[in-house]
Amino acid sequence: MKKEFKNEAITRQSEDFARWYTDVCRKAELMDYSSVKGFIIYRPYGYAIWEHIQNYLDRRFKETGHENVYMPLVIPESLFQKEKDHVEGFAPETLIATIGGANNLEEKLIIRPTSEVLFCDHFAKIISSHRDLPKKYNQWCSVVRWEKTTRPFLRGAEFLWQEGHTMHATKEEAEKEALDMLYIYEAMGKELLAVPFLVGRKTENEKFAGAEITYTIEALMPDGKALQSGTTHYFGDGFAKAFNIAYQNKENVLVNPFQTSWGVSTRLIGSIIMAHGDDNGLSLPPYVAPIQVVIVPIQMQKEGVLAKANEIKARLEAKGIRVNLDDSDRTPGWKFSEYEMKGVPLRLEIGPRDIANGVVSAAIRYNGKKLVLNEKDLEVEIPKLLKDIHEALYKKAHDYFLEHLTEVHTEEELADVLENKGGYAKIMWSGEQEVLDQIKEKYSATARCLPFEQTPFAKKCLISGKPAKFVVIIAKAY
Amino acid sequence: MKKEFKNEAITRQSEDFARWYTDVCRKAELMDYSSVKGFIIYRPYGYAIWEHIQNYLDRRFKETGHENVYMPLVIPESLFQKEKDHVEGFAPETLIATIGGANNLEEKLIIRPTSEVLFCDHFAKIISSHRDLPKKYNQWCSVVRWEKTTRPFLRGAEFLWQEGHTMHATKEEAEKEALDMLYIYEAMGKELLAVPFLVGRKTENEKFAGAEITYTIEALMPDGKALQSGTTHYFGDGFAKAFNIAYQNKENVLVNPFQTSWGVSTRLIGSIIMAHGDDNGLSLPPYVAPIQVVIVPIQMQKEGVLAKANEIKARLEAKGIRVNLDDSDRTPGWKFSEYEMKGVPLRLEIGPRDIANGVVSAAIRYNGKKLVLNEKDLEVEIPKLLKDIHEALYKKAHDYFLEHLTEVHTEEELADVLENKGGYAKIMWSGEQEVLDQIKEKYSATARCLPFEQTPFAKKCLISGKPAKFVVIIAKAY
Repeated sequence: MKKEFKNEAITRQSEDFARWYTDVCRKAELMDYSSVKGFIIYRPYGYAIWEHIQNYLDRRFKETGHENVYMPLVIPESLFQKEKDHVEGFAPETLIATIGGANNLEEKLIIRPTSEVLFCDHFAKIISSHRDLPKKYNQWCSVVRWEKTTRPFLRGAEFLWQEGHTMHATKEEAEKEALDMLYIYEAMGKELLAVPFLVGRKTENEKFAGAEITYTIEALMPDGKALQSGTTHYFGDGFAKAFNIAYQNKENVLVNPFQTSWGVSTRLIGSIIMAHGDDNGLSLPPYVAPIQVVIVPIQMQKEGVLAKANEIKARLEAKGIRVNLDDSDRTPGWKFSEYEMKGVPLRLEIGPRDIANGVVSAAIRYNGKKLVLNEKDLEVEIPKLLKDIHEALYKKAHDYFLEHLTEVHTEEELADVLENKGGYAKIMWSGEQEVLDQIKEKYSATARCLPFEQTPFAKKCLISGKPAKFVVIIAKAY
Repeated sequence: MKKEFKNEAITRQSEDFARWYTDVCRKAELMDYSSVKGFIIYRPYGYAIWEHIQNYLDRRFKETGHENVYMPLVIPESLFQKEKDHVEGFAPETLIATIGGANNLEEKLIIRPTSEVLFCDHFAKIISSHRDLPKKYNQWCSVVRWEKTTRPFLRGAEFLWQEGHTMHATKEEAEKEALDMLYIYEAMGKELLAVPFLVGRKTENEKFAGAEITYTIEALMPDGKALQSGTTHYFGDGFAKAFNIAYQNKENVLVNPFQTSWGVSTRLIGSIIMAHGDDNGLSLPPYVAPIQVVIVPIQMQKEGVLAKANEIKARLEAKGIRVNLDDSDRTPGWKFSEYEMKGVPLRLEIGPRDIANGVVSAAIRYNGKKLVLNEKDLEVEIPKLLKDIHEALYKKAHDYFLEHLTEVHTEEELADVLENKGGYAKIMWSGEQEVLDQIKEKYSATARCLPFEQTPFAKKCLISGKPAKFVVIIAKAY
């Protein structure tokens, strides 16, 4: 269904996707810029999306035996430097405090870019016996990375996230944890964000600083670029050795435990905006939407209109639905376009004629479809409609994903996917980093992951012609 | 009821109250020290208490129309200096970042000690019409204050808190907001923490930097000292003027709005520890306790014991009760003392004899009382018991509060309260700061607040002999 372009305040997607994105972020009041570059203000409408993500994940983390903790904001420089790969990965982009209480500090303090070393320092103190394992911790906080190029939600000097950090007695248990958490992220995409994720393992070169294995969830954006949306890491016992974390096992032998970490951030808000938005602005999947239903009263000065609107609001709220009744002095037309831009999944209109007929007019945000509902059925019909909308948004994004996952057999096809069609190119790969470097050089595209499904479809590496070892997925990325 | 002293790992309260406090903080695993002085690690058992406080307050904030936001962690030095009183109050204890991405920053960045200026900077951008008011925002975050002397939860270089920031069209509305939030804090003390708060208004000298009025909630600790546990502030339009926040009112005149802010922090955990703890450790009020009921199986190798313990756990959890079944290989005696130290309000013991008799043995943490419950009644009896425990803890703390609120008519009585009896001395006061300075000099005690109940009980100021203007409450404080 073709939709008209109503909201002149927002650049069209087709005109300039990047400008469309920042327009939506600001006009829909998801965020604002602060006076420090890269540090954004999470406004109520944007923060509420994050709260729904938090609620979902916090519940799932706790159901799977994780406990929340809070570690310090700052890391002493000496502690930060304890794990070589890790410090190399993060040091160039840290914010550093040097003055405290008007005096120069004896030791520089790094504002946490991630908290592995803080957790390890703590684990070394509290783990000494097999009885102390596993430790399955999570923390909700903000982290700081001094990035040069920043974009709202996608890349920021400060962002909100959760970081899980766990210690296990065995390699197997830790490896399983890294996968279990990956699958929780994947389920969140499907059940909450209506965003299908490509899941898989990162190549050696794309791993997290210090990790043995990094798994990833990747979302595909409508401009054909991938957005890495979360990662889980298996560390082996590398950090444990560097930080002297050891425990007495049941045979009274002192051994190192095995570690994981995993995180998703407010970048997920970026993936929601891009995955579902259109020329008229944001289009939110219902379960993560701060407002699920907006009620716009028509001719609200007429007797009974506001009373009925309030009654319906109360009835829906009693069903746990998040409802906004806009009884401000704006015109209905202004309100229609405002809530469309803000991506409210469902709009209800209630006017004297609807009331006389015992009906309510409804409009679905993502496809513009209008329908008439019997007022008495609203408690049943609205939750059903929200579920349908969620599923339709997921299906739409999933169809797009499937259409843009191309099995590639020649370099010409690779060039066509990366330069014209967009999306993921699935190729056979020798496993040599030089091949990926060549692709990156030529197309500014990177290996997104080694998918779990590794059924070979050719014998030779697409680029080098050497024997193929892996299926790897290549795309341009944010 | 006299209780025996079981836990040798904890210093007795009577011996050294301060050491008792830090012993409890660490042994009950509420927190640990980090490698940076004053920055503590909130361990799962301590953090879970904070989560219950968050849940309570977040619900009450949202019910009263507040929205959550998130502001940047850092404040540019020039922005920080915009409100004179405010910067004078906070500048001496700030942590300052000067390096970003390996380069010196062009402008120093203050790690937020509080966020008034960030909110004002944002309000100036988003408030322009009477339609934009009120703005009622709250944020959950950590703040940093470079304190020299720190104690877990009570005074830290970093602590967790919420800070509410609101803007209103009228003085009256803003003043009411500052009081409304004070009463929500007071209700939290009564309903959740089982801590009675003295509420009132701070004297001019004890006001928050930049505020016109500061209200306070003060808890009385068993060592006779007051603990300021939260404050709410009415700012008038001082910040609004300094930050050029103005809106067009309904008469199309450009005017400044009126502002409040209010906050409570993880210091509340300190007030819970001290208000209810005893020689055997922590004693938690049930509604804030991470574990409300611990089940200790007796002779758990015997057939049916663990099965019954698990069944009862599931039944209580189905009632929304937070239960821990400790089926580890420790002895029951070890478990009794461990959970007593950790302050779990109610312990259930389940052994073969209990099962045979269809009963469960229960022990109440705060008074050591034992009772026998019919197993079939548990779903009804346990919630009732938890409610009784909460009310008893509150009453105990409230009785102590009333016993230690002394109306003072002579300087000798004042000295006796402040030096021997402890608690609050209620005096008549001329309103002159010199009087309070004298008291502080002589007794190291300060004006805690001007209580709302201002019925005079003498005509002259206790100290200066001049005409008395206010009832003021004096105490030593943390």
